[in-house]
Amino acid sequence: MNVKETVIKVANEAKNASRIMSNIDSKTKDKALNAMAAAIEKNAGEIKTENERDLETAARQGLAAALVERLKLTAARIEAMACGLADIAKLKDPVGEVIKESKLKSGLLLKKVRVPMGVVGIIYESRPNVTADSTGLCLKSGNAVVLRGGSEAINSNTVISTIIKDAAYGSGIPEGAIGFIETIDRAAVNEMSRMDGSIDMIILRGGDRMISSIASGATVPVIRHGKGVCHTYVDAFADLKMARDICFNAKVSRPGVCNAMETMLVHKGIAEKFLPGMIKMLAEAGVEIRGDETVKAIIPGVKAAAGQDWAEEYLDLILSVKVVKDVDEAVEHIARYGSGHSDAIVTGNIENAEKFLNTVDSAAVYWNASTRFTDGGEFGMGAEIGISTQKSHARGPMGLEELTSIKYVVTGSGQVRK
Amino acid sequence: MNVKETVIKVANEAKNASRIMSNIDSKTKDKALNAMAAAIEKNAGEIKTENERDLETAARQGLAAALVERLKLTAARIEAMACGLADIAKLKDPVGEVIKESKLKSGLLLKKVRVPMGVVGIIYESRPNVTADSTGLCLKSGNAVVLRGGSEAINSNTVISTIIKDAAYGSGIPEGAIGFIETIDRAAVNEMSRMDGSIDMIILRGGDRMISSIASGATVPVIRHGKGVCHTYVDAFADLKMARDICFNAKVSRPGVCNAMETMLVHKGIAEKFLPGMIKMLAEAGVEIRGDETVKAIIPGVKAAAGQDWAEEYLDLILSVKVVKDVDEAVEHIARYGSGHSDAIVTGNIENAEKFLNTVDSAAVYWNASTRFTDGGEFGMGAEIGISTQKSHARGPMGLEELTSIKYVVTGSGQVRK
Repeated sequence: MNVKETVIKVANEAKNASRIMSNIDSKTKDKALNAMAAAIEKNAGEIKTENERDLETAARQGLAAALVERLKLTAARIEAMACGLADIAKLKDPVGEVIKESKLKSGLLLKKVRVPMGVVGIIYESRPNVTADSTGLCLKSGNAVVLRGGSEAINSNTVISTIIKDAAYGSGIPEGAIGFIETIDRAAVNEMSRMDGSIDMIILRGGDRMISSIASGATVPVIRHGKGVCHTYVDAFADLKMARDICFNAKVSRPGVCNAMETMLVHKGIAEKFLPGMIKMLAEAGVEIRGDETVKAIIPGVKAAAGQDWAEEYLDLILSVKVVKDVDEAVEHIARYGSGHSDAIVTGNIENAEKFLNTVDSAAVYWNASTRFTDGGEFGMGAEIGISTQKSHARGPMGLEELTSIKYVVTGSGQVRK
Repeated sequence: MNVKETVIKVANEAKNASRIMSNIDSKTKDKALNAMAAAIEKNAGEIKTENERDLETAARQGLAAALVERLKLTAARIEAMACGLADIAKLKDPVGEVIKESKLKSGLLLKKVRVPMGVVGIIYESRPNVTADSTGLCLKSGNAVVLRGGSEAINSNTVISTIIKDAAYGSGIPEGAIGFIETIDRAAVNEMSRMDGSIDMIILRGGDRMISSIASGATVPVIRHGKGVCHTYVDAFADLKMARDICFNAKVSRPGVCNAMETMLVHKGIAEKFLPGMIKMLAEAGVEIRGDETVKAIIPGVKAAAGQDWAEEYLDLILSVKVVKDVDEAVEHIARYGSGHSDAIVTGNIENAEKFLNTVDSAAVYWNASTRFTDGGEFGMGAEIGISTQKSHARGPMGLEELTSIKYVVTGSGQVRK
């Protein structure tokens, strides 16, 4: 089989399985999830061995350290994968929920019911745990899944998918419901993105370039999980101690994730008071500062921010800092350079807070808290398949509900329309 | 300006206006909608004149009668357009609704709030009333709109958009919030579908070919309003009088719309009893029947259905009819040939009804009622911008809520993430 035939086969098998999946009861799904978790624990050694093969290739090819770090599966990470699946089994099944119910003037009973999406495609990079996490969330929400991981993790992903498939199919999940594209040929991604007859939605997790390239040729509706250029604006009315703690947490606690702060905006009225201590604290944690002219004037020796810095997702211990004249300029800056992910204001002034919260067009907007909270677990969804940076279908952290669609179920007693 | 520059200009103006639109109060929006309604009534003569120019071109070019019928604006249709806008003013504003609210374990207050989508693009054909209806719905839901109608209606659409723009901008709607692409150059559609920096979502209303061609090159998320190949399955346990009324209504009451029945499936156990009367009744209403072998054996002289008939959206007084052995074969047939729009079962048997309702993967599924009810007005949404035939973002009739996105508003007192 060539690449196209392989993808068609996997997608069609998933489509067929999805019709059975959509009516499988919660008990069977939860049993399968627990069996998958147990199988991962049992086969941790084999997973480790295959992961080492990927790490060797990565070393040979000189993969960047950050990517190697994401690729690596430690015993703790394998254990976390298993726990993740068991946790998904404990979540409430979203399928069948009656979202709205009404009696129409025609006498018809109208129910808006939550149903599975059908077949969900996941295209992702580096982190092999996504193979297990995504499969778990898709199955629990009644979907079949078609997985396409990065070539750098091919051996890890293949072994994980084989292990969870065996466990799932042995526990009542229909064969084909877990589709895994084994070829590393890039053409497979493009084929997958054009299978709108069998795949209902594709989640794209990856860099800007990967997302744009796939999204522009896709006929399947895609959900972009794009970059996070997150801002914290420290207003003139901020409690400066609180602002320091929030900014430090947003930048330093985990710089490599999408909800970390990349740009700090500071009101001019408090810049001279706030910046020296703040920047000292950040510098001591190893953060490189790139400032505008005003910042450089206040803190001699700070590196100048270039134009492209304002739109950069560093994912690293680097922070661009700008002094603004008011909340309007902060909002304007975020509209221009932000990525619509997560942005925060620190202020004691309710009017400025409301202006910021209402006008900043991002998935999550914060008042007096760190942007690091944008996460399905923190938001009470139990788990997340990623964070959508687009506005249609789902925005922000995507949990089980965001992997479903709806259906109108209409019951009558012979009604016809006039 | 060339086509590309024109589209960029209109889309960017809409983007800028959308930032103001998202925070405009309901009163201003409703005032503008009423002013738009009044302006359409006042300028009905001018609209009629411009529509006649389009009708002349259509006659010269030999446009199909069905399309001419859709294009034509009578006094009553112009009045209906005005009433439609006034009705939208009366609907509840969806913006700002708190969909969910919770206190997180971190102490943060999390609100999931309904917000406008931003800029909504509408690509449509023939019917000029869509210009007014879509604009009304988009403005009420806090969005800016970019409209692109069919070239056959260019004069009608241009005059309508000019009239409603003047009225809206004179009533507090920001300039640029109603974008209308005046060029009839087809390239404009492709440009529009690739402006993901400024357009947040595009609704595609039109034929299969138009939708596929645009969707496959789009970088803006699109919502397909595709065809309706709707089925009615008459089960062995159907009340045959009820089945006759439902099938007659579903086929004959308005054959040119997407929720009309295109295929009737009949259980073999009742076919000989049900079909002769039913087909006589349909034939008397001018319906041409295309049957499978069993139907032809029962009703001599019926035309044979060809393979492509089963997937055909006739939008006309034509019906394909097939005899099936049970509800499973009916469901199987719909899965293979249906378009996921609206499908009905007529039965007195609750098990068969539930199997059908749970397994048929369509936006609306009916038990003992006509598929003709799939409509935003009938479903209590007040108005609709169309009917989505895809599963992501919105499915079935799309009203004001379906033109919105969400935003997480998080309020804290200095919380940082561990």
